[in-house]
Amino acid sequence: MERANTILSGGSVVTMNQQFDIVRDGAVVISGNKITAVGERAAILSQYEADEIVDCSGQYILPGLVNAHTHVPMTLLRGLADDLRLDVWLMGYCMPTEREFVTPEFCQLGTGLACAEMIRSGITSFADMYYFEKDVARATASAGMRGVLGETILKFPAPDAETYEHSLAYAVEFIKEWKGHPLITPALAPHAPYSTTQDMLRECVNVALEHDVPVLIHIAETKLEQDDSVAIHGQTVVPWVEETGLFKAKVLAAHCVHINQGEMRILREHKTTVAHCPTSNLKLAAGIAPVAQMLNERLTVGIGTDGPASNNDLDMIEEVRLAAILAKTAANDPTAVPARQALLMATRMGAKALFMDDVGSLESGKLADVITIDAGPVHNMPQFDRDPNAIYSRIVYASKSSDVRHVICNGDWLMRDRNLLTIDEAALLQAAAEYAVKVDGFLAVREKDILRKLLAIGGLEQGESFEVQVKAILKDEHDLENLLQHSDVEIVKSVHYRQYDTYFLFDDPAAGRVRYREDDMLDEQGNVKSVRSRLTYTTTTKERDFHSAVVLSRSRFISKADRPLRFYREYFQPHQERELQKDRRRWHILYQGVLFYVNLDRVIKPDLNEMFVEIKSRTWSLSDAENKADRIKRMLDFIGIGETQIIRMEYLEFHKMHS
Amino acid sequence: MERANTILSGGSVVTMNQQFDIVRDGAVVISGNKITAVGERAAILSQYEADEIVDCSGQYILPGLVNAHTHVPMTLLRGLADDLRLDVWLMGYCMPTEREFVTPEFCQLGTGLACAEMIRSGITSFADMYYFEKDVARATASAGMRGVLGETILKFPAPDAETYEHSLAYAVEFIKEWKGHPLITPALAPHAPYSTTQDMLRECVNVALEHDVPVLIHIAETKLEQDDSVAIHGQTVVPWVEETGLFKAKVLAAHCVHINQGEMRILREHKTTVAHCPTSNLKLAAGIAPVAQMLNERLTVGIGTDGPASNNDLDMIEEVRLAAILAKTAANDPTAVPARQALLMATRMGAKALFMDDVGSLESGKLADVITIDAGPVHNMPQFDRDPNAIYSRIVYASKSSDVRHVICNGDWLMRDRNLLTIDEAALLQAAAEYAVKVDGFLAVREKDILRKLLAIGGLEQGESFEVQVKAILKDEHDLENLLQHSDVEIVKSVHYRQYDTYFLFDDPAAGRVRYREDDMLDEQGNVKSVRSRLTYTTTTKERDFHSAVVLSRSRFISKADRPLRFYREYFQPHQERELQKDRRRWHILYQGVLFYVNLDRVIKPDLNEMFVEIKSRTWSLSDAENKADRIKRMLDFIGIGETQIIRMEYLEFHKMHS
Repeated sequence: MERANTILSGGSVVTMNQQFDIVRDGAVVISGNKITAVGERAAILSQYEADEIVDCSGQYILPGLVNAHTHVPMTLLRGLADDLRLDVWLMGYCMPTEREFVTPEFCQLGTGLACAEMIRSGITSFADMYYFEKDVARATASAGMRGVLGETILKFPAPDAETYEHSLAYAVEFIKEWKGHPLITPALAPHAPYSTTQDMLRECVNVALEHDVPVLIHIAETKLEQDDSVAIHGQTVVPWVEETGLFKAKVLAAHCVHINQGEMRILREHKTTVAHCPTSNLKLAAGIAPVAQMLNERLTVGIGTDGPASNNDLDMIEEVRLAAILAKTAANDPTAVPARQALLMATRMGAKALFMDDVGSLESGKLADVITIDAGPVHNMPQFDRDPNAIYSRIVYASKSSDVRHVICNGDWLMRDRNLLTIDEAALLQAAAEYAVKVDGFLAVREKDILRKLLAIGGLEQGESFEVQVKAILKDEHDLENLLQHSDVEIVKSVHYRQYDTYFLFDDPAAGRVRYREDDMLDEQGNVKSVRSRLTYTTTTKERDFHSAVVLSRSRFISKADRPLRFYREYFQPHQERELQKDRRRWHILYQGVLFYVNLDRVIKPDLNEMFVEIKSRTWSLSDAENKADRIKRMLDFIGIGETQIIRMEYLEFHKMHS
Repeated sequence: MERANTILSGGSVVTMNQQFDIVRDGAVVISGNKITAVGERAAILSQYEADEIVDCSGQYILPGLVNAHTHVPMTLLRGLADDLRLDVWLMGYCMPTEREFVTPEFCQLGTGLACAEMIRSGITSFADMYYFEKDVARATASAGMRGVLGETILKFPAPDAETYEHSLAYAVEFIKEWKGHPLITPALAPHAPYSTTQDMLRECVNVALEHDVPVLIHIAETKLEQDDSVAIHGQTVVPWVEETGLFKAKVLAAHCVHINQGEMRILREHKTTVAHCPTSNLKLAAGIAPVAQMLNERLTVGIGTDGPASNNDLDMIEEVRLAAILAKTAANDPTAVPARQALLMATRMGAKALFMDDVGSLESGKLADVITIDAGPVHNMPQFDRDPNAIYSRIVYASKSSDVRHVICNGDWLMRDRNLLTIDEAALLQAAAEYAVKVDGFLAVREKDILRKLLAIGGLEQGESFEVQVKAILKDEHDLENLLQHSDVEIVKSVHYRQYDTYFLFDDPAAGRVRYREDDMLDEQGNVKSVRSRLTYTTTTKERDFHSAVVLSRSRFISKADRPLRFYREYFQPHQERELQKDRRRWHILYQGVLFYVNLDRVIKPDLNEMFVEIKSRTWSLSDAENKADRIKRMLDFIGIGETQIIRMEYLEFHKMHS
């Protein structure tokens, strides 16, 4: 007799191996962290003796499920704000709350809660993208689950990093700390093409290849993302990312709702894998991913719950079922993505999507990630056995996560008879309830703020934009020629307009200010050729100075103003209103190949009697900002602007001081 | 102090009344079968004393959920055959199994199982469409649930009725027996426009109005149904049904996946209500119903699980969640069908869809259909209370049916602490398992049969067609003029073609025969102008004679043959092959306004040396068949055909006998 630690005996073993073997009255043998045998119960019991033989009659024995995409600490934001426009939810609720609350402790607690929920739904492995992934890793390892954990890299400030350089440095540290852990695979998670830059993606692939870690990224979640990519870059998202070389790394691309066949082939060529998140895609109105087509193109596709703030749970069995039924209507074919295929995506193929070859099926030699599901509850009876696929149908179409009975990961018991063995659920729930009270309080105060009102009426295009900028008095208009005609400068575009600003000011200066701006574009004869209106929101800005002249500003929200000024006046009910009118000539220039905007302003109302020059550029990182500030400084020198000409305030304040 | 039977005390009372009141620390008072008070716990307890006060702290107290469309006995067909084309599933598995197994006992058992499952998912009322509804009613009443139960009316034979007249007679009996029962509302269920006739719908509305009972019907489930309606009737489904006057009754229309705005307005005008079945629609690839638009058009829309053979469960909480998230992607708007709206569709609005005004909300005076759901499992924590809608979000987006704790219907406890009180679940499961073994055996035998093979290659247009027909030797071609030129006859169309039949015969005559038929359509000069190929399957037919001449035949499956004869020969591997070639002139005639086909056949191969006349007509009911048989008899008289000329066999058999 051979020795083993544990034998799961009886029940139907659904191996999900290459041959899709099912052993009706089967058994699975576990020794250490591995599966050492799978077979008929009688044969196994005559060959093995074990410390424990667990009777699993009346259960299905399956590989642990693989959740291919989630954001586990967001359990603590579950149900915070639902049924909202994406921008209102993200910028009005989610991001402000994250900025305020996301800490290492938050991430550990949220991960613990998520692990409890995921174990209960039969998940043993998951791919995560969030902040403070070191803490996510600690809580995951402590729960005994397997995680591919990606530290988020963003071109915006994040809860765990002021700039993307900080997050990259944190990620490298995280990778070094956790690489080689039996349960944790550290990874890099550049958030998405639209929230990073090509340069950032290039740095990510370098780090990923150097340390041989996977890269997790959101790709083509919305149609808007594809439309913007075509409008801005002249190409769809996947080819744009391909240019950066990112796909040379092991990349797991979440969503891929709006990719075309050519993009699928690029992904396949690079062995890039996909995480399909049907509930989240439906709930956020992102659309339906062409999963049947992806599988047809031989892509490796896993299934993910996405974060509990957009789902709102981590129920993998529900997710597999939805993936199976949604694909049929999407493909207009009731035979598309049959139950076995859907379960494969949540087991062996899902593991492959996470670049794990040693889990996802019940085979001798694989790691012991095993779950059991009760086969006989009333909602799953009777059972027909004529069709060999009926067992997959029962698991996918009629089982519930509440049917999951036992969960073993890496040879260790995580749940037995629905009792969690590695997590103190009651303590976590208590701590979560305390968080919820604080978050409720925080948001109740914010309810009164201007940003929320702005968000509620919609149309915000940009969460945060960062600009390096300088403003100065221009003594002689002709001095500007020294810049515009400089040999290192190329003028890309020039426009001339009159700008009418109406500022809404509020009691509390910390509430920020809203500007309604109308631009009348002028032709060469000075006739108005077109008009556009925009709404801008500026909060008290966190600023940073370079060379005591160039300023880094942030938190300027811009939207199209598609209603009349009167509407906004009544809606915002400002304490005070101020008007500003200026004549602006604007040049888009490339200085040494870098894009800047140069404004020549005459302020007509109130009449400031001066001419002003502004030089600005968008920026995404601190090093980029420094770099651009240096250039701005040199451009000021070309014009001949000295320290005394620099203005460090807005026109309204300048007027106030000089009138 | 006022007396009551039961007080559910503590927990959050989600009333779903007109004001959507939520009472945080609330209580619901039940006396007899009614709710007598709803309010703050403290106030209620100071005013009422009760036989029992049930502590519901940590739970949501809700109205019982309303399942607006299902076929409950089909629990016994759950998972029988999945991931198949609709026709393969329906005609290859579902209908044959139903024909063999559906009996009063089957319906009682299946209903009992369904009630157990539905109670566990918080359902207290449902609308059913099936056969033997008297037995469905018995089992439903015995489980203590509320049912609007519709006896199916079809133009095909059904398990409980040879013809539609029989089913209508059964329905009237059923209505008389059960009308006025406190839990059961008997109803009529003409299956669908495509599976009934306008005359049948007219008879249904008469019965419904006479007895004041609701009508349940499937409407516009698939795009094919709409396309066929336009092709056949020149109008979409809803206006076609409206012509029959059906909407004068209280009609609940299931599915409505493919209705346009005009059709929505017709339904609203008639106060017709809708049952939305998102899981079934996705799984069968029917499409996504425009629910947000329906609600916008002020239609009353409930949510249904559909039958467990196409879902595959009766989990209402899952269904509500899917309805909410699917509507967002369908409307391309993440604010569409918010959680509260979805829950409304499953409670008060769902009850209204079933024409029940006295259930669906927790209000004094309403019937006591009340459930509780655990508020605090790990998959639904933490809880934010800032937003008054958060409670709906928690119930709809993160609750599971396994969280349902107590269920009370009509004042009686059906489930307490997840223990079923009216149903012996174990006994039902045992009986169901025995059924499953029999069904498995039955289908295993059928696996070998020709029909299944035919179905597997697809394209069947018609489940069963019924024809009354006569065949006779025609002595003189000119005798036919007496019919064709008769004053009561109008020739609608005439065609001339050569017909090449290849019959595949099999070892077992009971296996039926497959005919590959090619028609070469001829123009007036006798040139071939077009060709069509069809595949026909004929089983041993159940026949009925009229006037010892006219025969009623059934079970003739027809499909387009889109592959060459050689393919079918290799695929079916017939034991024997026979060829038949004939020259056919065919007239479509109206005799006294009724459509008949008249064929003048010369059988060329084998050469039969005779001329034959056939007169045929499609039929849907026994009385119609009798009626048409009478007319055929009269037409034979016009031609002068006597008893001895009548042929009661097919050309192949005739040849065999005469050669």
